[in-house]
Amino acid sequence: MSDTQNTNVTNDAPADINHQAKSATFGAEEPLTLDSGVVLSPFTIGYNTYGTLNADKSNVILVCHALTGDQHAASPNPASKKAGWWAALIGPGKTIDTNRFFVICTNVIGGCHGSTGPQDENPETGKPYGMSFPVITIADMVRAQTKLIDRLGIESLFCVIGGSMGGMQALQWAVDYPERVFSAIPLATAPRHSAQNIAFHEVGRQAVMADPEWRDGDYYAHGTGPDKGLAVARMAAHITYLSEAALFRKFDRNLQDSENLSYGFGADFQIESYLRYQGSSFVDRFDANSYLYITRATDYFDLARDHDDVLAKAFMNVKTRFCIVSFTSDWHYPTAYSKEIVKALNAAAGNVSFVEVETDKGHDAFFLDEPEMIATLTGFLSSAAQQRGLMS
Amino acid sequence: MSDTQNTNVTNDAPADINHQAKSATFGAEEPLTLDSGVVLSPFTIGYNTYGTLNADKSNVILVCHALTGDQHAASPNPASKKAGWWAALIGPGKTIDTNRFFVICTNVIGGCHGSTGPQDENPETGKPYGMSFPVITIADMVRAQTKLIDRLGIESLFCVIGGSMGGMQALQWAVDYPERVFSAIPLATAPRHSAQNIAFHEVGRQAVMADPEWRDGDYYAHGTGPDKGLAVARMAAHITYLSEAALFRKFDRNLQDSENLSYGFGADFQIESYLRYQGSSFVDRFDANSYLYITRATDYFDLARDHDDVLAKAFMNVKTRFCIVSFTSDWHYPTAYSKEIVKALNAAAGNVSFVEVETDKGHDAFFLDEPEMIATLTGFLSSAAQQRGLMS
Repeated sequence: MSDTQNTNVTNDAPADINHQAKSATFGAEEPLTLDSGVVLSPFTIGYNTYGTLNADKSNVILVCHALTGDQHAASPNPASKKAGWWAALIGPGKTIDTNRFFVICTNVIGGCHGSTGPQDENPETGKPYGMSFPVITIADMVRAQTKLIDRLGIESLFCVIGGSMGGMQALQWAVDYPERVFSAIPLATAPRHSAQNIAFHEVGRQAVMADPEWRDGDYYAHGTGPDKGLAVARMAAHITYLSEAALFRKFDRNLQDSENLSYGFGADFQIESYLRYQGSSFVDRFDANSYLYITRATDYFDLARDHDDVLAKAFMNVKTRFCIVSFTSDWHYPTAYSKEIVKALNAAAGNVSFVEVETDKGHDAFFLDEPEMIATLTGFLSSAAQQRGLMS
Repeated sequence: MSDTQNTNVTNDAPADINHQAKSATFGAEEPLTLDSGVVLSPFTIGYNTYGTLNADKSNVILVCHALTGDQHAASPNPASKKAGWWAALIGPGKTIDTNRFFVICTNVIGGCHGSTGPQDENPETGKPYGMSFPVITIADMVRAQTKLIDRLGIESLFCVIGGSMGGMQALQWAVDYPERVFSAIPLATAPRHSAQNIAFHEVGRQAVMADPEWRDGDYYAHGTGPDKGLAVARMAAHITYLSEAALFRKFDRNLQDSENLSYGFGADFQIESYLRYQGSSFVDRFDANSYLYITRATDYFDLARDHDDVLAKAFMNVKTRFCIVSFTSDWHYPTAYSKEIVKALNAAAGNVSFVEVETDKGHDAFFLDEPEMIATLTGFLSSAAQQRGLMS
């Protein structure tokens, strides 16, 4: 549910990754009908592609980003100049090999990095949507992606992959479009948001909304925004992305500046300084209203809801080959959540492999170069490519 | 680290509990020298007593409250009229039997329920202390309690008991005043605040300080305070007091008002409504600056710090009989933290029994009528009373 921990700075994607930054706008003739019944039109999808589409368009891997991610999965973020959040995994000869696969990564609808979201103009008012933007769901994010995939003339995706909220999208794709998803890799994810998951998100939303600079979402014209509230939201969320063990290993009770406690309220401890930095740097790259909408989408996520609350029924028509990956120290979306998915797929006679990766790095492990995860993904993709007839 | 979940409303303590609400003020001749070096003077301790002090003053149980608790352990809170936060445990014939023991419960120094804290007058300015109040520590809280115990002519406490921050005080008492503590029962506590503990507290402090109504702590004269920030702080903290399993059992994804999602930002889910209530009701009973100071005190808590960072050394001169209790689903101060204490006591040849209570109720289980906890406490107190010659 978070962004990359990758702090490598690079100004360019590898020359041979064939990176293209694009956007697609869908006008009145191609509206997006949302789960709420609201029709969003026009709308734009910002996306990046890496690699080359093959002749029969059978080599597409759709990479879905997490809560505060973006479409810059393998190329530097144009604003921060930091390396793409999954640059460790995507590239020539890497796990998601751009020499073999055509990778598409879209910014989700409701986002703030090129796809239509609350900061964009509401055509009915000529002003930014703010809170008049419709509430969106994970299924809406996927539905928006189908419009792009349709436009690109791609019938079926070789693989949909993503961690956290990206994993929710991968699951939703397979359930809603069973003919169009050959394989799916949901990492560190959940079939539904739990009460604890919702609770943490609600804290974040209340922190944003408590900030008077939020102005009921109409802050765009004021030159200021709910920066302090959004920073607090991020700080609270960030704790859930790391394990207690990793926090101990990285920070323990180490002091920031000296051997002595200050007996004050500055950032005495390194963990305080780190969290403050996480909060303030997030504000620079994310829109507060977008944060409200995207957290709401994940809270609404419950794959079984439209299937009599029986998860296995959601998977009844699914033909996708699944590789489910969880991480031992992830307490945000713990292994038990992934096992629910695995059990339901088994009950629905689905095709699923499951790996629990041993790591102390917590939820955010899926962003990292975790050897066991890399080996699992490489093996699964290679075998699925063989089954798809994608041997090079 | 939280307050009672007890929602029983009663206007009176049991008639036979012999409840007395008192306060003691210590003037210039009895200053409190704090760990920071600052001298606090004058200062007041608000406290309650239950039961009757015996002739040789050997039957005293000091009950220490948790982060946002108060001295109203067994008698109704004068403001909320709710039953005392440990009314289930303290009373005639109960676990902490007021027919046998003389129970003292003090509001901690820095608190906001009768003991001197940031909302009280700074004698140097004639205005409320606000952030000019000195930073206090757990050891300072205990030091302030010794002043009261001295004034009452009590040489040695039969038992010091408390959960969470109350458990920290119990540990600190035994370490700092080894001759004065016959037995101690630290429940659901830790020998030091971990990085994750500090992280959650820092989020809460930042939420308060982000609220413009906080005004650098000088809000008392304005008739308003950082209510929204404090509510957010409470919401975030409250999640840590409950287990994921308990949240699932109590709330799951149940909707608040209807069968349908609202596609809005109201409290669709019961867990949202519950958390909002926890936030707003907390604001009515707690001072925001006090929250900053008391969270800081727990973050500073590290029993080994003055003992070469070796916890066993802290216990080297301890004579106290310990009963350590943890709860299986407590992820705020998990069992591993209690086991650190037990191991250190064993290494120091201390007298310790340890029970991990099986429950899904999380950290706040220590407030509740948990049968295994009750049985453990009853057995330990009875045996310790026998050793102390307190048989009735």
